Amino acid sequence: MSNHTRILLIRCSDEPGLIHRITGFLAKIGANIIGNQEFVEPLQRVFFMRTEYSIQKEEEDKTILSELLQILPKDAELKLSTSRKARVVLLATKEPHCLGDILLRWRYGELPMDLLGVISNHETLGDLARDFKVPFVFIPSDGMTREEHETKVQERLQEMQPDWIVLAKYMRILTPEFVRNWGNRILNIHHSFLPAFVGAKPYEQAYKRGVKIIGATAHIVTENLDEGPILVQDVCHVDHGYSPERLVLYGRDLEKVVLAKALRLLLEDRVMIFQNRTIVFE
Amino acid sequence: MSNHTRILLIRCSDEPGLIHRITGFLAKIGANIIGNQEFVEPLQRVFFMRTEYSIQKEEEDKTILSELLQILPKDAELKLSTSRKARVVLLATKEPHCLGDILLRWRYGELPMDLLGVISNHETLGDLARDFKVPFVFIPSDGMTREEHETKVQERLQEMQPDWIVLAKYMRILTPEFVRNWGNRILNIHHSFLPAFVGAKPYEQAYKRGVKIIGATAHIVTENLDEGPILVQDVCHVDHGYSPERLVLYGRDLEKVVLAKALRLLLEDRVMIFQNRTIVFE
Amino acid sequence: MSNHTRILLIRCSDEPGLIHRITGFLAKIGANIIGNQEFVEPLQRVFFMRTEYSIQKEEEDKTILSELLQILPKDAELKLSTSRKARVVLLATKEPHCLGDILLRWRYGELPMDLLGVISNHETLGDLARDFKVPFVFIPSDGMTREEHETKVQERLQEMQPDWIVLAKYMRILTPEFVRNWGNRILNIHHSFLPAFVGAKPYEQAYKRGVKIIGATAHIVTENLDEGPILVQDVCHVDHGYSPERLVLYGRDLEKVVLAKALRLLLEDRVMIFQNRTIVFE
Amino acid sequence: MSNHTRILLIRCSDEPGLIHRITGFLAKIGANIIGNQEFVEPLQRVFFMRTEYSIQKEEEDKTILSELLQILPKDAELKLSTSRKARVVLLATKEPHCLGDILLRWRYGELPMDLLGVISNHETLGDLARDFKVPFVFIPSDGMTREEHETKVQERLQEMQPDWIVLAKYMRILTPEFVRNWGNRILNIHHSFLPAFVGAKPYEQAYKRGVKIIGATAHIVTENLDEGPILVQDVCHVDHGYSPERLVLYGRDLEKVVLAKALRLLLEDRVMIFQNRTIVFE
Repeated sequence: MSNHTRILLIRCSDEPGLIHRITGFLAKIGANIIGNQEFVEPLQRVFFMRTEYSIQKEEEDKTILSELLQILPKDAELKLSTSRKARVVLLATKEPHCLGDILLRWRYGELPMDLLGVISNHETLGDLARDFKVPFVFIPSDGMTREEHETKVQERLQEMQPDWIVLAKYMRILTPEFVRNWGNRILNIHHSFLPAFVGAKPYEQAYKRGVKIIGATAHIVTENLDEGPILVQDVCHVDHGYSPERLVLYGRDLEKVVLAKALRLLLEDRVMIFQNRTIVFE
Repeated sequence: MSNHTRILLIRCSDEPGLIHRITGFLAKIGANIIGNQEFVEPLQRVFFMRTEYSIQKEEEDKTILSELLQILPKDAELKLSTSRKARVVLLATKEPHCLGDILLRWRYGELPMDLLGVISNHETLGDLARDFKVPFVFIPSDGMTREEHETKVQERLQEMQPDWIVLAKYMRILTPEFVRNWGNRILNIHHSFLPAFVGAKPYEQAYKRGVKIIGATAHIVTENLDEGPILVQDVCHVDHGYSPERLVLYGRDLEKVVLAKALRLLLEDRVMIFQNRTIVFE
Repeated sequence: MSNHTRILLIRCSDEPGLIHRITGFLAKIGANIIGNQEFVEPLQRVFFMRTEYSIQKEEEDKTILSELLQILPKDAELKLSTSRKARVVLLATKEPHCLGDILLRWRYGELPMDLLGVISNHETLGDLARDFKVPFVFIPSDGMTREEHETKVQERLQEMQPDWIVLAKYMRILTPEFVRNWGNRILNIHHSFLPAFVGAKPYEQAYKRGVKIIGATAHIVTENLDEGPILVQDVCHVDHGYSPERLVLYGRDLEKVVLAKALRLLLEDRVMIFQNRTIVFE
Repeated sequence: MSNHTRILLIRCSDEPGLIHRITGFLAKIGANIIGNQEFVEPLQRVFFMRTEYSIQKEEEDKTILSELLQILPKDAELKLSTSRKARVVLLATKEPHCLGDILLRWRYGELPMDLLGVISNHETLGDLARDFKVPFVFIPSDGMTREEHETKVQERLQEMQPDWIVLAKYMRILTPEFVRNWGNRILNIHHSFLPAFVGAKPYEQAYKRGVKIIGATAHIVTENLDEGPILVQDVCHVDHGYSPERLVLYGRDLEKVVLAKALRLLLEDRVMIFQNRTIVFE
């Protein structure tokens, strides 16, 4: 009988005795807790928990979840990881640094995901994807409305059934409808330290503002552009001698590392979203 | 005959041969260059230079400056440091961390300035200033308009004749007139990574936005609130577990170190302002 | 009946069901868990837990601890915070930046401790301590052996009965006997990114080695100089233009902030020591 | 007549008038200075200068250099960049992250170099290099002495005539003779914040020492292992929860970014070596 490792995410109103009840239930079904993290949001008293456990006899997921719901507050939301790898589609445009970085990490086993393909509105990066033996889907947007183009993209996404859509420098603004369709499943990298420099050309904005630090932000896409929940941010110091071009160059290194970290957090079920914020159990 | 150390700041349109002419002039008057830094702003071709030199025979400053102007482009602006220490006034309200930090550094010789006094709209920090033997001027604002209060503050400033006014957590918004009167001589610490979270309560804003990094920004005050030239910024990583109160606590450490660094840069004549940016010759 | 907030630290061998038993016990005595953090050291399977709870009926501490020990593995070690503030003595020599910073934070309520006094082998900082109304004990070391001087220092420490001794730039090496006497209760700030540059003059060493980053390390003092468990570290980027003097200047800002953070972690019972490492429940 | 951009590096004893003479000479030959950086090492009074200039009439390099030498102190050393790209060979073993990162950057024009090939003592990364159309030279070391293996590697290097040899996680220690043969032309990435954790398995060392920050260091290889001049360092914060495996994972991101930055500095002639330190004109 082999051991299975599962990850359980719980969110509910806080009340006394929650951890005791949950750990009691896990003991009852024979789960051995490997790691456990909790957080109570102090202003609204919401309880979050991530438990990683190993179990020999594999219970039916539905049974586990329905029994858990009976001992938790009524507003509880649960997620139990499956044994299959998460399915991921990458969207890109012309810039190679984030796409290439993810492809490299995936090729050498650093990102445990089932990489379904790369969709792009340009052919520029097709060779790169194909060199890594990843299907490349070119969907040009010339002469189309935003909605027409998105319809074609979503047709392919519907076929692929991704758990996560990663915008690896995808330079098109998504419609609210698109975002709703894939609610909380789209990860984006923004090339600034949000909420500074929302919108286009953040490095030019940063140069003009004369900031002494630049950054990058990985966030979940919501209907409000650049305002979704933030997963990872990083920064580096710059000075007056940095031209806009050099800001771009240094920014790219931030972008690719920040995006990869955020994607790994998602793949390892370490992120819970609460209102417009994230709880990240690192 | 003793040696004098002087700092010369030059700003003018760029043109070939500038450095050669300037260093030639300095050689002619017997100056020995200790350090030399130049920068050419690439978009508008403006030349900036900071030269630290020692000289035995102390020429008349006016002579030096007028002779230099003859060999430089017509738009040249010069600043030659004097031998006297810069005169500084601190403005504060109730929070002690920035004020206390500056007082400590000044007491032990880390900030080479003539500290003229502390002006505050509250009595809270009077004991602190007095313990450091620094004059404390309490100018209450109760029952006054902003203009009336500022008039009283400016009367005291007129008497003190500061080179620099440091807002060490001074929680009042200055009128454009006040800012104009002390043009480019007011240093402020803002408790966020500008341009993120302009305005009031940035740590509450940061908590609500769920950022993973918080920061502090020291900048010159201009008529547009929180939009003046930035001198120094620093940041630290935070996570979902940081309450607004803890963000404040960590933010304070950033604020006081960033403000002190910025003040030291000013006192050492290392900052030149160009449009809304700074050239910092560290 | 008022509410009491207590902090419980537990360390023991890991085994299934620990959290369930501990939280069950806490529920039984009417404790309401405010925050809970656990960690299992993966190589040696040691379990660490920090629980902050509020309770109305104040049980006898001894009763709580003895009942807890009955449901935990035999090697369990417990610590239950008391309601009194921790008692702290500062040791310093001539450098004012760490001492002054702690005094400021303590004066304005940022460090919840009972500050018993400052002991120094020089008179230099006496005025500073007295300005903050803190007893200053001058114990000169001239003409004494290390042991003789330490004997005098320890006599005063014995009278003061500190929970924590903070070496705020105390530039004397302690004997192993002294360290043993105050086992794991001495906090030191080392002016480098340990384990780089152990020993004296780390900034000179850093300059000669040409590092591009300098750091500071707060650690518990053990018998092996500079090798005790690390609580907090921080760094900043430097370049070839930084003279040894400027490295010192920038290093001081790191030192004082790092030391204060470490002290706050100790005062809030957030640190557990395991072999030569720390578990820090931030 | 087209414009040529050249970079001139100068190192000599400091003396008055150097900048004036050098800029005068450059004016004489019709050079237009684009950027200029100087540094005087304060302890030994050594002068360093990097000048980027454009010139229309391309003088003979030898003429320029010999004329310059006549106006400089006798110990002057000069380097004048050529118009051809630097020739680079990568050495790797089994880890793909640094090699893959450099290949990606080079493919998309971020590293202006002539990439001659990848040499490895394992076949593991052959596919990766070939996917990027870069010659892969497999030189196994099984059953050979270190010297025998190095002889074979150096034969290939002799054919390739590289300006720079980049050790992109090449896990073999080079003999002093090898290092001497390619003096100051070998760039290495060390997986720690040097001088902490020299030698093997730095992440394991870091875990055992319980550091709160890990780092990576790019340095020029000298005969003393891990002690050569440092070009770039970076760090990230970690805590007790990071297993050795996770330290490796986070360390990789530092390593690849630090190595690429260092390589770019070399390719842009921004690094001068002085004793065991670097002057980096960013």
